[in-house]
Amino acid sequence: MPSQTQPLPDPSSPAGDDPVLAEFRKSIDNIDAALIHILAERFRITQAVGKYKARASLPPADPGREQLQIARLRKLSEEAELDPEFSEKFLRFIIDEVIRHHEKAQSRQG
Amino acid sequence: MPSQTQPLPDPSSPAGDDPVLAEFRKSIDNIDAALIHILAERFRITQAVGKYKARASLPPADPGREQLQIARLRKLSEEAELDPEFSEKFLRFIIDEVIRHHEKAQSRQG
Repeated sequence: MPSQTQPLPDPSSPAGDDPVLAEFRKSIDNIDAALIHILAERFRITQAVGKYKARASLPPADPGREQLQIARLRKLSEEAELDPEFSEKFLRFIIDEVIRHHEKAQSRQG
Repeated sequence: MPSQTQPLPDPSSPAGDDPVLAEFRKSIDNIDAALIHILAERFRITQAVGKYKARASLPPADPGREQLQIARLRKLSEEAELDPEFSEKFLRFIIDEVIRHHEKAQSRQG
């Protein structure tokens, strides 16, 4: 992360010209590229899971598994000082997308 | 990722007993732990950005920056074979949370 020792810029200038903000944004952009690639890999795996569940006639959603995932991620979040509420919302957001994919795979099989 | 050469399990047994699914789930759990830690770092940075923006009287949201981020992540997603629509929804989800944090930081300063 960039240091914050530089003088404050003129607030009337656009944020894009702010050198402190520009440094922060470079770190955010690197992190976002990492997130996109990790998410791409997660969906590669859940796509294979979807195909497997469709073949094995397993239901797309698994509420018991989801409860275990939520509990585990909330614990990890606390250790990483991330809001556990947010991590739960985040997992829900991802799982909803995965279930949509699984339902599509299921309907292609049926 | 686990191989899919094992025989299909009895569909009446719970998914948790399925050895193929158990292997997939180990990979998903590893990926989720990585996502949580990367997200924790992203929010550490945006928390610093929020404090800086509040000090510098910069607005919490920056629609021009967001458009650039969306365009960049859509391009990265295509390269990684991730649905670009999903990556846009994902960034929107994260940015909405960040803006909520910035507004809180702003109101603490004001």
